[in-house]
Amino acid sequence: MAPKGSAVIIGVGPEQGLGATLACQFAGKGLHVFMAGRSEDKLQHLASKIRQSGALVTPVIADATVESDVKQLFKLAQQDGMRIDIAVYNVDSNIPSPLLETDTETFTKLWQQNCLGAFFFGKEAIHAMQKCRQGTLFFTGATASLRAKPPFTAFAAAKAGLRALAQGMAREFSPHGIHVVHTIIDGVIDGERAVIQFPDFVNAKGADGLLQLEAIAETYWAIHQQHPSAWTHELDLRPFKEPF
Amino acid sequence: MAPKGSAVIIGVGPEQGLGATLACQFAGKGLHVFMAGRSEDKLQHLASKIRQSGALVTPVIADATVESDVKQLFKLAQQDGMRIDIAVYNVDSNIPSPLLETDTETFTKLWQQNCLGAFFFGKEAIHAMQKCRQGTLFFTGATASLRAKPPFTAFAAAKAGLRALAQGMAREFSPHGIHVVHTIIDGVIDGERAVIQFPDFVNAKGADGLLQLEAIAETYWAIHQQHPSAWTHELDLRPFKEPF
Amino acid sequence: MAPKGSAVIIGVGPEQGLGATLACQFAGKGLHVFMAGRSEDKLQHLASKIRQSGALVTPVIADATVESDVKQLFKLAQQDGMRIDIAVYNVDSNIPSPLLETDTETFTKLWQQNCLGAFFFGKEAIHAMQKCRQGTLFFTGATASLRAKPPFTAFAAAKAGLRALAQGMAREFSPHGIHVVHTIIDGVIDGERAVIQFPDFVNAKGADGLLQLEAIAETYWAIHQQHPSAWTHELDLRPFKEPF
Amino acid sequence: MAPKGSAVIIGVGPEQGLGATLACQFAGKGLHVFMAGRSEDKLQHLASKIRQSGALVTPVIADATVESDVKQLFKLAQQDGMRIDIAVYNVDSNIPSPLLETDTETFTKLWQQNCLGAFFFGKEAIHAMQKCRQGTLFFTGATASLRAKPPFTAFAAAKAGLRALAQGMAREFSPHGIHVVHTIIDGVIDGERAVIQFPDFVNAKGADGLLQLEAIAETYWAIHQQHPSAWTHELDLRPFKEPF
Repeated sequence: MAPKGSAVIIGVGPEQGLGATLACQFAGKGLHVFMAGRSEDKLQHLASKIRQSGALVTPVIADATVESDVKQLFKLAQQDGMRIDIAVYNVDSNIPSPLLETDTETFTKLWQQNCLGAFFFGKEAIHAMQKCRQGTLFFTGATASLRAKPPFTAFAAAKAGLRALAQGMAREFSPHGIHVVHTIIDGVIDGERAVIQFPDFVNAKGADGLLQLEAIAETYWAIHQQHPSAWTHELDLRPFKEPF
Repeated sequence: MAPKGSAVIIGVGPEQGLGATLACQFAGKGLHVFMAGRSEDKLQHLASKIRQSGALVTPVIADATVESDVKQLFKLAQQDGMRIDIAVYNVDSNIPSPLLETDTETFTKLWQQNCLGAFFFGKEAIHAMQKCRQGTLFFTGATASLRAKPPFTAFAAAKAGLRALAQGMAREFSPHGIHVVHTIIDGVIDGERAVIQFPDFVNAKGADGLLQLEAIAETYWAIHQQHPSAWTHELDLRPFKEPF
Repeated sequence: MAPKGSAVIIGVGPEQGLGATLACQFAGKGLHVFMAGRSEDKLQHLASKIRQSGALVTPVIADATVESDVKQLFKLAQQDGMRIDIAVYNVDSNIPSPLLETDTETFTKLWQQNCLGAFFFGKEAIHAMQKCRQGTLFFTGATASLRAKPPFTAFAAAKAGLRALAQGMAREFSPHGIHVVHTIIDGVIDGERAVIQFPDFVNAKGADGLLQLEAIAETYWAIHQQHPSAWTHELDLRPFKEPF
Repeated sequence: MAPKGSAVIIGVGPEQGLGATLACQFAGKGLHVFMAGRSEDKLQHLASKIRQSGALVTPVIADATVESDVKQLFKLAQQDGMRIDIAVYNVDSNIPSPLLETDTETFTKLWQQNCLGAFFFGKEAIHAMQKCRQGTLFFTGATASLRAKPPFTAFAAAKAGLRALAQGMAREFSPHGIHVVHTIIDGVIDGERAVIQFPDFVNAKGADGLLQLEAIAETYWAIHQQHPSAWTHELDLRPFKEPF
């Protein structure tokens, strides 16, 4: 059976990551998933796995910070005239750095990946969704968007920009039927990245102290299912043991 | 089949209201619902309706601002040793009033209903839920908790207190396995109260401009279903057309 | 020389406290100070000291949580037809308490002292100030108004209510020429109360780690001096070493 | 008499503007003012005026978004070994634009001017101030940092980034004796820019409805005068008639 709609996700990397988990989930719900990332190997591997389940998936090599890549991704997703039900900007890059040691390249790169790319992605998603006056547009955000603490000042500045962008889009496009959502991930996701970047932290937290990938994906789906009369624009997601 | 657990809701009034809608929904999910309100007529009418669907329901006459009533409600809910899965403080009372015209009785009553009662209810719910180290405790809040605007200053002061209470409880009891949730209802609920209190406003908004009862209840259920590794503490709920 | 105006302060206790420091400062600026508190001894002692400097001061025994006391205070302050330039609600009561150990009396008392009394005081101050379409109305607040953390949940619920009250008043009465200010004291004030209540904490912080009384008073005065075209409604005050 | 210290301001444009007003004020307080902007004509004109009052001033042609310009500015300000007492990042650029009409150049430029330049400036200011373990570093911010509303989404994303940057810096460097301040200008400044950009708006507001330049400058000075035991990190500034 042909899918009735599609999902576009950017920021799909390792199989044990949020992007990949959302891709699997949306595919499982019957959507054709256009999933974008920078690593062809990872995308192809994930695409094979999803296809084995009988779902439709299109891997797209794309850099979220390159506008033409983002435009191309949405062009692909729309070429069969399919409706885009969900779009997720899931790029998250964090580099801890004391302020005086933060160079311009790092400060700029964090902004490009966490905020500028979201601007490219959001515009394309809204262009596409406006045609049907429906769709859910997610931006995966972080607690740093609410509070800037060293050594995460540059990250916080980028995520605060993302949050404002998502909020402005919600105010502008909700009345047009587009559900814009900003999630505040408060804690460490139990994925490959954390294990590689912060192995000691992951061990110290224990399994219960990390956000489980499927658990996050369940909530994204539940929010997508909301009736337009009671939409959530912003919500936090946090392991029960996480101090906040 | 006997229910596996129960739900306790206070602030159950008209059939076309959020408390009643949550009661029906939780009953439909197989929970024994202990529903409390001040009007015996309304409770009995609703109880009959729920019983017709084959569900277990216990109506309890209670005033949320009377501590002994709240204690009695939870005593009843626990007398069969049943687990309390969900508790909802759904009392919401709003009286618009320019500040200089707000008398002490009104200011106090709004606090009692929106905040003090939540303190009574929250304590009892946590006492009960701690035994099983699980349960979801909802507080139905409002945008006024974030921004105080005349003529809703007294209401905002009460709802801001409620929000702080819920937040403090979440920080204290989440690590014990109790999921504490504060919902920010931003808009007017399409229920009997709005139709009576603000008929012109309801007409002006149109059906799409009001929060549908079932839509809110769906989200409460979805949040209750969240895995402890990714709990939401706070989320807004708003009609897509609502300016914010 | 007769004072041109007056200041009304409630929450004046020990000489080494914020209320007393504000009283001395306003008296030094030439205002007739009406200072209210619950301890006649402390008030008389402070009044003698202020009178020695040649300033006019009227001590008033009053409980901020008793509406008639607050009304009487403002009646006194206005009986000579003098303009009220400044009014400060400086009552601050904090009782740390884990939530399940917090009884109704404590929860209610904290609200009465931090929020209900401010409602009484604010109404009277605005009634008085509206006549001249000018005046500055301060509410001494706390960081807990922004974030509720155990064991300060009850305190936070009260201070969050205070903040909302102040914000609603600012929105309603700024256009009438009344400057409503909410200060967020973030840290421990270097006064008698801290020394008695938290001696170890005071020692650990060191002199630099506590808010100096005169330093706070200077900022209150600077904010009172602001031109109406650039009023501050809310500002934080924090020792430079305080983590936040 | 030689000045004891200096002030560095970037974002100095028309004489009727906040940068120029701060320059005049700081010069009047006895500081050697290094004032930077992009227009040589405007800077020279202002420098002449300030010199006539007997104060020391050094105009510097600089683009806040060019890192080498910012480094050069601080190099100049430090070449005589003078202490930098105050540094103000006063660049504020706003371009209203519905999101789908906002191009990448505009989105990027707003970020560069409101946020990236502040990163350059903040780093240099802190490098300089750390030597003396003192100094006040101001960032002129806007209400949009707190709430993103169309057609100001791109501006809000940039200002939210600025706010996070300032907050992170405050947390990192306050304990080192550097006072980092974020001002929230809520309203329109009564300067040349507003008159040119929004003449109708300026007329509609009336003189009382705009922020007076000198009034803002007074508050900057008062905040600079604060004792380290009671520093303000963030405050709003708003005409008394401004709805908020």
